[in-house]
Amino acid sequence: MSRYGAQYGPDVTFLGVPRCDWREPSTYADAHVVVLGAPFDGGTSHRPGTRFGPQAIRQACYLPHDGSRPSLALRVDGLVGVYDAGDVEMFSGDAVRSVHDLQEAVHAITATGAVPLVLGGDHTIAWPDAAGVAQHLGAGRVSMIHFDAHADTGDVEFGSLVGHGQPMRRLIESGALRGDRFLQVGLRGYWPGPETLTWMAEQGMRSYEMTEIGVRGLDACLTEAFAIALDDCDGVFLSVDVDVCDPAHAPGTGTPEPGGLTARQLLDAVRRIAVELPVVGMDVVEVSPPYDHAELTSFLANRVVLEALSGMARRRRGDPWDPARPLLDGR
Amino acid sequence: MSRYGAQYGPDVTFLGVPRCDWREPSTYADAHVVVLGAPFDGGTSHRPGTRFGPQAIRQACYLPHDGSRPSLALRVDGLVGVYDAGDVEMFSGDAVRSVHDLQEAVHAITATGAVPLVLGGDHTIAWPDAAGVAQHLGAGRVSMIHFDAHADTGDVEFGSLVGHGQPMRRLIESGALRGDRFLQVGLRGYWPGPETLTWMAEQGMRSYEMTEIGVRGLDACLTEAFAIALDDCDGVFLSVDVDVCDPAHAPGTGTPEPGGLTARQLLDAVRRIAVELPVVGMDVVEVSPPYDHAELTSFLANRVVLEALSGMARRRRGDPWDPARPLLDGR
Amino acid sequence: MSRYGAQYGPDVTFLGVPRCDWREPSTYADAHVVVLGAPFDGGTSHRPGTRFGPQAIRQACYLPHDGSRPSLALRVDGLVGVYDAGDVEMFSGDAVRSVHDLQEAVHAITATGAVPLVLGGDHTIAWPDAAGVAQHLGAGRVSMIHFDAHADTGDVEFGSLVGHGQPMRRLIESGALRGDRFLQVGLRGYWPGPETLTWMAEQGMRSYEMTEIGVRGLDACLTEAFAIALDDCDGVFLSVDVDVCDPAHAPGTGTPEPGGLTARQLLDAVRRIAVELPVVGMDVVEVSPPYDHAELTSFLANRVVLEALSGMARRRRGDPWDPARPLLDGR
Amino acid sequence: MSRYGAQYGPDVTFLGVPRCDWREPSTYADAHVVVLGAPFDGGTSHRPGTRFGPQAIRQACYLPHDGSRPSLALRVDGLVGVYDAGDVEMFSGDAVRSVHDLQEAVHAITATGAVPLVLGGDHTIAWPDAAGVAQHLGAGRVSMIHFDAHADTGDVEFGSLVGHGQPMRRLIESGALRGDRFLQVGLRGYWPGPETLTWMAEQGMRSYEMTEIGVRGLDACLTEAFAIALDDCDGVFLSVDVDVCDPAHAPGTGTPEPGGLTARQLLDAVRRIAVELPVVGMDVVEVSPPYDHAELTSFLANRVVLEALSGMARRRRGDPWDPARPLLDGR
Amino acid sequence: MSRYGAQYGPDVTFLGVPRCDWREPSTYADAHVVVLGAPFDGGTSHRPGTRFGPQAIRQACYLPHDGSRPSLALRVDGLVGVYDAGDVEMFSGDAVRSVHDLQEAVHAITATGAVPLVLGGDHTIAWPDAAGVAQHLGAGRVSMIHFDAHADTGDVEFGSLVGHGQPMRRLIESGALRGDRFLQVGLRGYWPGPETLTWMAEQGMRSYEMTEIGVRGLDACLTEAFAIALDDCDGVFLSVDVDVCDPAHAPGTGTPEPGGLTARQLLDAVRRIAVELPVVGMDVVEVSPPYDHAELTSFLANRVVLEALSGMARRRRGDPWDPARPLLDGR
Amino acid sequence: MSRYGAQYGPDVTFLGVPRCDWREPSTYADAHVVVLGAPFDGGTSHRPGTRFGPQAIRQACYLPHDGSRPSLALRVDGLVGVYDAGDVEMFSGDAVRSVHDLQEAVHAITATGAVPLVLGGDHTIAWPDAAGVAQHLGAGRVSMIHFDAHADTGDVEFGSLVGHGQPMRRLIESGALRGDRFLQVGLRGYWPGPETLTWMAEQGMRSYEMTEIGVRGLDACLTEAFAIALDDCDGVFLSVDVDVCDPAHAPGTGTPEPGGLTARQLLDAVRRIAVELPVVGMDVVEVSPPYDHAELTSFLANRVVLEALSGMARRRRGDPWDPARPLLDGR
Repeated sequence: MSRYGAQYGPDVTFLGVPRCDWREPSTYADAHVVVLGAPFDGGTSHRPGTRFGPQAIRQACYLPHDGSRPSLALRVDGLVGVYDAGDVEMFSGDAVRSVHDLQEAVHAITATGAVPLVLGGDHTIAWPDAAGVAQHLGAGRVSMIHFDAHADTGDVEFGSLVGHGQPMRRLIESGALRGDRFLQVGLRGYWPGPETLTWMAEQGMRSYEMTEIGVRGLDACLTEAFAIALDDCDGVFLSVDVDVCDPAHAPGTGTPEPGGLTARQLLDAVRRIAVELPVVGMDVVEVSPPYDHAELTSFLANRVVLEALSGMARRRRGDPWDPARPLLDGR
Repeated sequence: MSRYGAQYGPDVTFLGVPRCDWREPSTYADAHVVVLGAPFDGGTSHRPGTRFGPQAIRQACYLPHDGSRPSLALRVDGLVGVYDAGDVEMFSGDAVRSVHDLQEAVHAITATGAVPLVLGGDHTIAWPDAAGVAQHLGAGRVSMIHFDAHADTGDVEFGSLVGHGQPMRRLIESGALRGDRFLQVGLRGYWPGPETLTWMAEQGMRSYEMTEIGVRGLDACLTEAFAIALDDCDGVFLSVDVDVCDPAHAPGTGTPEPGGLTARQLLDAVRRIAVELPVVGMDVVEVSPPYDHAELTSFLANRVVLEALSGMARRRRGDPWDPARPLLDGR
Repeated sequence: MSRYGAQYGPDVTFLGVPRCDWREPSTYADAHVVVLGAPFDGGTSHRPGTRFGPQAIRQACYLPHDGSRPSLALRVDGLVGVYDAGDVEMFSGDAVRSVHDLQEAVHAITATGAVPLVLGGDHTIAWPDAAGVAQHLGAGRVSMIHFDAHADTGDVEFGSLVGHGQPMRRLIESGALRGDRFLQVGLRGYWPGPETLTWMAEQGMRSYEMTEIGVRGLDACLTEAFAIALDDCDGVFLSVDVDVCDPAHAPGTGTPEPGGLTARQLLDAVRRIAVELPVVGMDVVEVSPPYDHAELTSFLANRVVLEALSGMARRRRGDPWDPARPLLDGR
Repeated sequence: MSRYGAQYGPDVTFLGVPRCDWREPSTYADAHVVVLGAPFDGGTSHRPGTRFGPQAIRQACYLPHDGSRPSLALRVDGLVGVYDAGDVEMFSGDAVRSVHDLQEAVHAITATGAVPLVLGGDHTIAWPDAAGVAQHLGAGRVSMIHFDAHADTGDVEFGSLVGHGQPMRRLIESGALRGDRFLQVGLRGYWPGPETLTWMAEQGMRSYEMTEIGVRGLDACLTEAFAIALDDCDGVFLSVDVDVCDPAHAPGTGTPEPGGLTARQLLDAVRRIAVELPVVGMDVVEVSPPYDHAELTSFLANRVVLEALSGMARRRRGDPWDPARPLLDGR
Repeated sequence: MSRYGAQYGPDVTFLGVPRCDWREPSTYADAHVVVLGAPFDGGTSHRPGTRFGPQAIRQACYLPHDGSRPSLALRVDGLVGVYDAGDVEMFSGDAVRSVHDLQEAVHAITATGAVPLVLGGDHTIAWPDAAGVAQHLGAGRVSMIHFDAHADTGDVEFGSLVGHGQPMRRLIESGALRGDRFLQVGLRGYWPGPETLTWMAEQGMRSYEMTEIGVRGLDACLTEAFAIALDDCDGVFLSVDVDVCDPAHAPGTGTPEPGGLTARQLLDAVRRIAVELPVVGMDVVEVSPPYDHAELTSFLANRVVLEALSGMARRRRGDPWDPARPLLDGR
Repeated sequence: MSRYGAQYGPDVTFLGVPRCDWREPSTYADAHVVVLGAPFDGGTSHRPGTRFGPQAIRQACYLPHDGSRPSLALRVDGLVGVYDAGDVEMFSGDAVRSVHDLQEAVHAITATGAVPLVLGGDHTIAWPDAAGVAQHLGAGRVSMIHFDAHADTGDVEFGSLVGHGQPMRRLIESGALRGDRFLQVGLRGYWPGPETLTWMAEQGMRSYEMTEIGVRGLDACLTEAFAIALDDCDGVFLSVDVDVCDPAHAPGTGTPEPGGLTARQLLDAVRRIAVELPVVGMDVVEVSPPYDHAELTSFLANRVVLEALSGMARRRRGDPWDPARPLLDGR
């Protein structure tokens, strides 16, 4: 049996949802979403610790771990039909083997029709995560919405093609994803340099730096991005690096870059994506508990997952949603 | 003599204001406001530590503890006429006795004409706080403005009617406050469930979830809420749970919920309430110093208190206030 | 079904041992020891947080949570025959109800012949823990070895008979335990005062203050204490308050008193007790994770439990043990 | 040779730029900007620790320390032509001597035509920093833009004219700077009192308190301030106290005042100033690493420096800059 | 009136003892000991923060702040006859003025016959502390027992004669104390260099490095030192730098040096000194709360003070004390 | 040129010793010891972070970083003849490549006659460290003294032969070191299991578990071990895992095991080894700054290095050393 449980610590599931084994589709036959842990930090270029991310994200909640979370805003329970397949065993000292094993698991889940939701781990895992989905849905059929302070389009770093600064390049170069269906939100700072930016432009990527977001507004940028994402693609992969938020909101991460989104902005954006777009895969990455305080970053990542799950559930319900409606005016 | 001082630590007063004894009205004959500590965390459902809240809030300031704080924005000294009655002795292992004793103290202070300002402690204390005020002003004569991430309208929790998730229900069910004069600001997340939300709607409560606040703007929501609060009521009780703010601004709390208000938003809202409405009682709750960092949350709570006191002082002065006026253009 | 799981967080067991339900003896028919969590901090007089102690102690290990821990020193696996019954639901705001419910569970476990091992929680729980054992084995038939910086023999504190400063008095006054079979190790500091010390002397208690331990040596004191403990008693209850250790070794606790034992001393002492004496019940208390750093105190408490379990297992094996034997000279 | 290196720790330079010696202009003949450390916290009125500010700000980056930082937003490398002269030796126990020595260094750098950029240290250093620049450019020829929660216009504090609450008064009283070319941004809270505010008004200072900024918008305030700053002055000194940001964004500081700017707002404002105005000197102060968490405040200060350097470089390049332009649309 | 209270924070006294004013001997006519705060960290060569030492040491206790602490070991209440004169105002930016003002206060207290007990502050203050005592008792009439990792016999440091690395040299060079009545305990590490060691040897100092203490035993070293201290001197000044303890026991300090005493060793040594020698003055220094965790170092310093006070009280009682006596065998 | 500097952060050297390039023996022709950083944590089984160990150990000192450290105890300057070759670039995501590159560097240094002193990094590096030395001195000619809580003799872990739990097995299995010249000090806890212990016994290893050390004394154990180490070997490799110390002394590490040595014990033992034995290589590993507090563990590791360097320098001087000699009695 391949279920690994939590690699670092006891075998807990995301907020108490049922366990399953990704190699045994019968254990999650009615799943909408399957959670998978990727406790890997061998690809990070700076502060490690994301190997403890999956366990921290699964547990960071003050409510009972009972597999139920009715959303106040959306009036659905996002945890219905969610299973947790435990962690993929990933040795941080062997990035190549680790990403290979992870892609196999993601692909297997996707092949059953369930949406894989991977808890990182450093951003290295976005390569196998999105590639595993594309392996099933077809090369170039999945667009990417990528929240991050960094473009993650580096080439060779530390002498390796595999690392947390390069997954997006690998995805495009391998043909798994189309560069011109790559939407990046929240970039800022001082990396990468001109050469890489030129490569990105050549691929047709669309990257919203914080300056543009500040001037135009996040919602306008998202609306524009949604149209690109839906153009001749069958689904959207959502990759959320918590460092897209300002370090005040997400201190527990490896490469914090001041000047990011607020937690409120990120939660609202994730909700919109899940409600409005056909999400076929997702990961939440770069939560590093050793650098966190009072579990701030783990709580945030847990809520990013819940917003996505709640949004997907609401989308399945099908009726329109009015964000201006008072809470107690009913559904 | 009943003055207890600081239950946990030496007997200090809020920023150096004079001591008083709540059982001896002569010790605070000219008081506008009397501060009272409620060092109780026996009602919290998750991370404790709010028993150290009163002492932390009293001390969290880098300026001299001299009983004077001239407000830059409002050009009044909010500490004039403020006394500190010390803590009510509250044993966290006996919630029922503790809330009883607290209500007695709050009522006694209210009966003298002074406004009680209670420093929590967990939110359990809102029941005796507001009930003690209503006990004097009359059942249903006090409206409630309640800043919080959570509705706090649970019924029985952990086998008890008394706890930090239930005070608002107790206040309404007991008749002390009217459900349709209950204004909640900042709710979000995944609690409570549909049954409780239905109960809340039936009471006529008005709860502004963060989504609505985001879409409509906080100021518009407040203006609407103010009108309800003033409708056939004689005064307003203001209950501020610091977790209404995003955990980035208030990490030192028991049940942090990402996606909240900024500190700036909360301070501005509290100021507006104190300037525009007849506040007859207030509490600031859920500051948990063990989970704080660099006193961030204690500083914030201290400033929430000062904004309220400054606003009340400005309201007593009576002349209009223009927030757009440059600081150095005088009073 | 009464198994509660972990009250604060997911349902994990001590290092992965099997789950059981204390109300269903069939679920732990072959148990030597049953672990029980007591997540209660309503009785603490100062820093709270021990409600998170049981979960922290269960998880504080860097090895696989696989229900097996072969001891290097004793060459036995202390986790064989160990079950975890989860937590007793304890509302910190109701100490009286909480201790009642805990005693019921401890008694039920003892009645099956298994040894209850309770993870606190504050020291309030020693009353129901030892009383629950004595309820089965008979009043006065169980002696007590009590590691602590504090005597815990207070009378009324905060207006209550129930709290973490009074369990030992309750045990003696109720007749559950004999005062002259009460062995205290590690006392120091400035509490209690003369009146209580006189009461303690009158009960015939034997309290080893750190000064005596320093002058005579811990081993000599223990040897003397063991003789008293075995005199006309049928078993020993071992109560370990982590604050018996110096705060350098156990910072995460509520009432730290400098000048205590080293971790090495405590671990050696606990091992000796488990190997040499018939332990019939045990608790490990006062681990307060919010005040811990890098899990130091949780790790220590986890190892205190393991030393006790390993020692009991070695005692069951029956052959003599030579602490001077080189590690690799075999069993 | 007078280069001191890092006073507290090894001799590192700001992100790897070349070393120089401020007494030897030949060592920085082609410099646009010279970084200087002022590791002094003897003037702080509350939490110290800013002596470790310069070293922390120099190192707080997860990218290679290679003396190059291409800005995503501005498409220039702000570190070209930047040198680091190390720290001025400043004994925190002798404020008078320390500020004298610092001013000598700042003046020497300014006299070569390079822009001095001083890393504090507490805000005491703004006096010698700006006075050293004015010493070369002429009394009254330099305007001041001052980001801060506090006016820093106190008179005697702790019996001294020199301290972190008084530099702005010293600058004006000494005639180095004109009071009516003093622009303060971000003031709030409860200091100073009416007497000092009156003095400030008499000097013609223009202070934007957070309330005005909230009502009018930061950009409108800045535009207004820029016009004043350029009126009959030859250059602008930019003094950034990190406590202008909300404590959520800058916890590692000595006198945190809730309700401040976000990191994003500060970074955008600094960029605008550097692009639009002739900056002739700058300091970044009040970073106190002992109170920081996960280097949040050091990272922020590092980026404030980089935004200024990048903006100055872009200004030197001369072509207009459109903040709404998409990142990948090229330069 | 000169009483300053707590310079940083509210006016609290050491564990609740009565307030007094050192300039008004009538306010402490019956004092055995007067506590004085010296909140100065302008003399430290590395991590600051000791300015918050006095307030932290005064408050670091989990028992009621009621001015009473009966010692378990010594069966006396060390707080009888103890007053707290508050802090001397000390500006960390002016070391020369600060030490002058402190010496004046210490001398005034000594002149009344009370023993001054100064809470630092960095070790700079040992100069005025011991000099203030010698000023009254006579040059060369007071011996010094000095617990420290460092000799503190530097000459000029940072261009200043006044600092925390030089007080012992100043005391000897000024003639206040005799070099050959200087007993140092706990030195270790890599400072000072040979030149200073030679100077120390020339003064006839006796310095017990940790190696010698390890080989000979602390008690033997102390016995030897006591004989020297009593030889032709009238009293002993006891100066305790908490860094004499291993950083595990005292992390909250400025210049931690691994390999020090345990807390237990220090407490026992201080007790012996207070019981066996005529202590005429004392200070406890180098507690730096910003670097502390869970108040470990503040608790330790508080207990160092209490052990000294209890020992002095026991010495005043006059009857012999047997450390091997069981706790409950009475007084 | 191959010198890499500090992989994570600016290029600093150990306490300011001269830089060198290990590929260019001319840059360290007169070296006694060459420091090398191994910033690798890809092999750790639990808490990562040791990649920041080398930089932290190099900087953890409050004295000037001037390349000089006269030892109080040994009266030599251990930094004379010490060079720092910077870090070997090690990608934590590729353990196999990383250990290969490290061994090459260690071997190159050894071949010049200098002693390599490697700063870890996790304990994975002991394999290339000792193998690199043996590669030059000959298989089986180097004995090993290994301080650790863990035996590090695992076989395959996480599917890999390379990791921090297996270096000692690799060294023996490869023939680089003889199993019967392997001396382990400080083992304890619950790992490894019987099978591995049997393998260890078969190799003739000698492992001193803490129980034996407690009963027999550390010095007696060391004396016995020294004799084995010198028997038919030409030199000793000293490998110090900081977790051999109790977590109180070394909290910043990956797999803390309570009940270890004190810092004093470790420092004394390292000094004895360096003075009494021919050390031909050394590493200090498992310092994980993210889990450290107030730099405790980094300070300890820095002093372990300095004790070794000082001891080697004293050994080179050749005259006998008397630890009981008073400090000021001269050399």
